[in-house]
Amino acid sequence: MTANSERGSAGRPARVSTRTLRDGAKKTVLPSGLRIVTEAIPTTRSAALGIWVGIGSRDETPALHGASHFLEHLLFKGTHKRTALDISAEIEAVGGETNAFTTKEYTCYYARVLDADLPLAVDVLVDAVADSILDPADVETERGVILEEIAMHEDEPGDEVHDVFAEAIYGDHPLGRLISGTPESITPMTRDQINRFYRRHYKAPEIVIAAAGNLDHATVVRLVRKALAGTPLDTGPADPAPPRQGNKRVRVRKAQNVVLHRDTEQAHIVLGGAGLGRHDDRRFAVGVLNNVLGGGMSSRLFQEIREKRGLAYSVYSYAGQYADSGLVGVYAGCAPAKAREVLDLIRAELSRIAADGITPEELSRGKGMAKGSYVLGLEDTGSRMSRLAKSELLHGDLMGVDELLGQVDAVTADQVHAVATALFAQPLSLAVVGPFDSGELPA
Amino acid sequence: MTANSERGSAGRPARVSTRTLRDGAKKTVLPSGLRIVTEAIPTTRSAALGIWVGIGSRDETPALHGASHFLEHLLFKGTHKRTALDISAEIEAVGGETNAFTTKEYTCYYARVLDADLPLAVDVLVDAVADSILDPADVETERGVILEEIAMHEDEPGDEVHDVFAEAIYGDHPLGRLISGTPESITPMTRDQINRFYRRHYKAPEIVIAAAGNLDHATVVRLVRKALAGTPLDTGPADPAPPRQGNKRVRVRKAQNVVLHRDTEQAHIVLGGAGLGRHDDRRFAVGVLNNVLGGGMSSRLFQEIREKRGLAYSVYSYAGQYADSGLVGVYAGCAPAKAREVLDLIRAELSRIAADGITPEELSRGKGMAKGSYVLGLEDTGSRMSRLAKSELLHGDLMGVDELLGQVDAVTADQVHAVATALFAQPLSLAVVGPFDSGELPA
Repeated sequence: MTANSERGSAGRPARVSTRTLRDGAKKTVLPSGLRIVTEAIPTTRSAALGIWVGIGSRDETPALHGASHFLEHLLFKGTHKRTALDISAEIEAVGGETNAFTTKEYTCYYARVLDADLPLAVDVLVDAVADSILDPADVETERGVILEEIAMHEDEPGDEVHDVFAEAIYGDHPLGRLISGTPESITPMTRDQINRFYRRHYKAPEIVIAAAGNLDHATVVRLVRKALAGTPLDTGPADPAPPRQGNKRVRVRKAQNVVLHRDTEQAHIVLGGAGLGRHDDRRFAVGVLNNVLGGGMSSRLFQEIREKRGLAYSVYSYAGQYADSGLVGVYAGCAPAKAREVLDLIRAELSRIAADGITPEELSRGKGMAKGSYVLGLEDTGSRMSRLAKSELLHGDLMGVDELLGQVDAVTADQVHAVATALFAQPLSLAVVGPFDSGELPA
Repeated sequence: MTANSERGSAGRPARVSTRTLRDGAKKTVLPSGLRIVTEAIPTTRSAALGIWVGIGSRDETPALHGASHFLEHLLFKGTHKRTALDISAEIEAVGGETNAFTTKEYTCYYARVLDADLPLAVDVLVDAVADSILDPADVETERGVILEEIAMHEDEPGDEVHDVFAEAIYGDHPLGRLISGTPESITPMTRDQINRFYRRHYKAPEIVIAAAGNLDHATVVRLVRKALAGTPLDTGPADPAPPRQGNKRVRVRKAQNVVLHRDTEQAHIVLGGAGLGRHDDRRFAVGVLNNVLGGGMSSRLFQEIREKRGLAYSVYSYAGQYADSGLVGVYAGCAPAKAREVLDLIRAELSRIAADGITPEELSRGKGMAKGSYVLGLEDTGSRMSRLAKSELLHGDLMGVDELLGQVDAVTADQVHAVATALFAQPLSLAVVGPFDSGELPA
């Protein structure tokens, strides 16, 4: 907290500042550096609330691997005012729902309630995140829950292969590690280690509280301030943390094949490489490329692998972004005996799109998919709340809906071709989970 | 089609009839017996469209096991006007999405689009469902896709255990079989068998077309009629099919334990029995019971098994309804070495709730959860479209939102106690997928 005060005293007056963002959203910065962003949607009867913390698994040292996610679990276990049952029961008794998730770069605690219950949701969720006890007995109990979560994940090979892929790309860089940690890192982690992580990282300047729904901005600010009063997040003057940039260019491993033996019915395959970070302007072209390549039923991979040949039920491409890097990959689940054929087809399609780019019709369809899914996604209060929070936390600014649609419209076939070449005309890494011995699949 | 004409001529005039349902929804019955239900939501910019057919896997003979689902796949493969690529590309080019799913009692084909694109969605989806070609080559290709879908499902033990459970309850009754069919039933199924199933079952009186969003009912009716004109669903006078009632009391097997060996990390467990059908008035009490027992983080099972003891990550109860039967069960995924302890805890909780019922506080919270999740679910055009269609297809009537909330409010603790006793004070069946030999787990 000393650090916060110093940062704040360097230039920022200890007062509340509020301004209007694009699309009528509003943003208030508290003296502590904690930000509150809201969007009023008067036509709805509900509200979504999220407390977003700009801390995730990539902020962990090897000894703390899994601490962000462990902490996320523990914050629902009780505060000075509430037991674990109180936290869930207060929200659920009014028909609301609450949950949380941890990513490599941020952590989100959220609730969705009827509009009249937003004050309750603010009170419960702020209390849980700001003032958790981390009771040692709860740490032991929750350790068991997390070990079961890890085991459950290992029973889902279609998910697990994505972790194998991330490790193939990033190795032991934090971006290559499991968000959950491993049994080896979770088992010995102590309550004090987690508590130090909590108090070091969960500081007001790292936190964005977002709400969308039938609400009034000033009221939400008042409710949040009241809920924060007297908690460890009620700190002296500081500036909000800037968006994460990454320290330097993330080192990526040489392309390689990793095969994890599991006694599964299908071969679960991911082929791909390192992609673009979220501050890269080419991300809109990558979005169009991804849609054309494997983003829907009309995409090339779906058509070639499923529609024409019936080799897979699930086949898709994806592009994920971190601050300073990203992942692009193609997933397919197929019969083990067909894995080579499917891999050859994926490689051929990636080579073709890298060499020749896309057609005008594909460009148009890829843009339509990007714009449509974005606009359709904006009808849900939860999605709108997430848009506000991620924009503030990850970009430090809210791009307007029209501006974003304009960015998609402005993408050219040449730009898509260029990113396709940049991403796919290079040696690619392969991750496989299936009934193979290590190294059995060809490069 | 002769059958339709005869049914229609028995009493129903060959004209279009439209009436207003509760909550301002509207329903039109075409002369063919096909129903159109819509709800206008002028505050949204999108529309959801669904074509619901009252036919599912329980309508299959053993030789046709999996035909409903196979057919659902094939209807996206092409019509006299469109290839498979046309169907998906037309919807996706405008940013919409389309898909389908098959259940044991009905099948749904749906699309979600921006409001201005609803005419396109109607044209594409009606064409696909009404006038599919079922090209023999496509049947062969899609057979491979379905076999991969079945294999994928077998790689998801947390899902597969529910199928094992259904078979433990219903045996070889159609409700006990996999919706997808099995490799043994799918491999030999011929194009002609599927086509006969299509033409015998996909008739106008069995179909409800539902839409919700920024739309006008009369316009939707006009669009649907135009799209249907000249297709095999453009048939002579008939009455809509009544809601499925089931022929007689579904025979349920004696309680038993079924253990499926898989080399998984977790033991995946379902314990439960036969429940109530959807026409049973006690279903509202079952909904409250389910919420209290295992419907959220504040539920008894979550608190006992996860919060207090850390034995599972995922633990929940559920209640599913068919026309004339249902399933109630508890799922938990846990370490194999803890399976007996978890099972004992579940059994103890089921016995306790069957013996003692629930507390006034639990009753209140269980009702709040039921009402809240229902109201929050109504904000999405897709959910509202589904509500309309299921009400019409499965109940023959739309229960108003206020009426439904009133039914939940009217549930008493005694009613919940009574259904808990009826459902859980009986021998229960157990399904387990995990690293066990058959019969290893105790009853």
